[in-house]
Amino acid sequence: MKIARFSHDGAINFGILDESDFVVLAGDPMFQGFETTGERVPLADAVLLAPVIPRSKVVCVGKNYADHAKEMGGDAPAEPLLFLKPNTSVIGPSDRIILPSLSQQVEHEGELAVIIGSVAKNVRAEDADSVIFGYTIGNDVTARDLQRTDGQWTRAKGFDTFCPLGPIVETEFDLESATLETRVNGDVRQHAPLSDMIHSVAEIIAYASAVFTLLPGDVILTGTPAGVGPIVSGDVVEVEVSGLGILRNSAV
Amino acid sequence: MKIARFSHDGAINFGILDESDFVVLAGDPMFQGFETTGERVPLADAVLLAPVIPRSKVVCVGKNYADHAKEMGGDAPAEPLLFLKPNTSVIGPSDRIILPSLSQQVEHEGELAVIIGSVAKNVRAEDADSVIFGYTIGNDVTARDLQRTDGQWTRAKGFDTFCPLGPIVETEFDLESATLETRVNGDVRQHAPLSDMIHSVAEIIAYASAVFTLLPGDVILTGTPAGVGPIVSGDVVEVEVSGLGILRNSAV
Repeated sequence: MKIARFSHDGAINFGILDESDFVVLAGDPMFQGFETTGERVPLADAVLLAPVIPRSKVVCVGKNYADHAKEMGGDAPAEPLLFLKPNTSVIGPSDRIILPSLSQQVEHEGELAVIIGSVAKNVRAEDADSVIFGYTIGNDVTARDLQRTDGQWTRAKGFDTFCPLGPIVETEFDLESATLETRVNGDVRQHAPLSDMIHSVAEIIAYASAVFTLLPGDVILTGTPAGVGPIVSGDVVEVEVSGLGILRNSAV
Repeated sequence: MKIARFSHDGAINFGILDESDFVVLAGDPMFQGFETTGERVPLADAVLLAPVIPRSKVVCVGKNYADHAKEMGGDAPAEPLLFLKPNTSVIGPSDRIILPSLSQQVEHEGELAVIIGSVAKNVRAEDADSVIFGYTIGNDVTARDLQRTDGQWTRAKGFDTFCPLGPIVETEFDLESATLETRVNGDVRQHAPLSDMIHSVAEIIAYASAVFTLLPGDVILTGTPAGVGPIVSGDVVEVEVSGLGILRNSAV
């Protein structure tokens, strides 16, 4: 099932994609289930929004693809390397990445995003599926120069607009057969099978939920493969994951 | 004005402290103002809760006292060193710090906490007062061993219960004349005037709001002075700031 959050005629709704229409839902499906209003909105008339606004946090995993760890000048750590992006950094697939004047080197990091569906603490890896609401695409936009100078990555990864999410949430997703591709102005920059992840989604959920309670709507960004690179004003960044569509944002 | 959030007779309310009573407020004063219900609850009958639950983030500043930077083995950075604690780490003054089995070295860090009162982006230092709702006390509880091994401080600082806040919010606070003292089982561990801070509250707000939008209820922890040290099960940690009371939490 493909679920989107969208605005149409001044209202914001959730909907289930049915061919080229959204079947409008009565409420947020994460909390209010899948009751429909009976209304349909053509996909072409809807402005897609971030499919979720985390109530608490976006948990990110650094260096979760060996080739990316290598291009950053090191090995991948034995355990997932966790960091946070604030919910104020989240934007949707129709929004623009605003390049801050504080950085001279903003880069894209296309990633698979996992959306948590229930309160989760100390989840075992084998139970992780039960706390997942669905999957979408994320872009862990990073001010590479500030990441280097600050040491802590909070500022470099936390700017407003630095966490594009979308376009839709897929509740049934086959990660093993999927590939991720990031393009800038149509040029392929990152291309990898998701099965190249070092720590699986289940392992990451177990690891993170041993530290903090995950809340419904929290997002986990699962790391980026090799090929990260700069984006400048006017660039259009597309992150595509097979089965999840294309997350497209321009930069200004 | 001293404001608390408390539970009493099964209800959770905000109240203004008036001698030994709370004057009950009709709603959250940050969003609904200071209208009172007419009811009074004796302080002694109220269970104090975290005075605020951040909608977005707890922004923390590392190494903001020269003597603490020194005890951590370095100099204080020229700019505020920002990191985040998730809102799921927040507990109140009646709650216990749960020592995670993942760490063998959990330490206290008593700090002044600033509560943001309005949406704030690109605030100039000279306008910072206008976005502050009030002040309270925080304890930036830290798993020092994980902080060292992880590099990124997210896990070490982000465990559930690792951000005690309270006991009350003071809307009028004279930082320049205030001192902070942390005691463990009555022994003084940290003692410093708040004027020892390297980066002022106004500078931190300007610096942080240039990166992310601060939302009402977001909290800024302003750094800890020298004297951080371990807490073990059974310890009672008290952080006292003149004018703000005592934030007391036991550890289990």
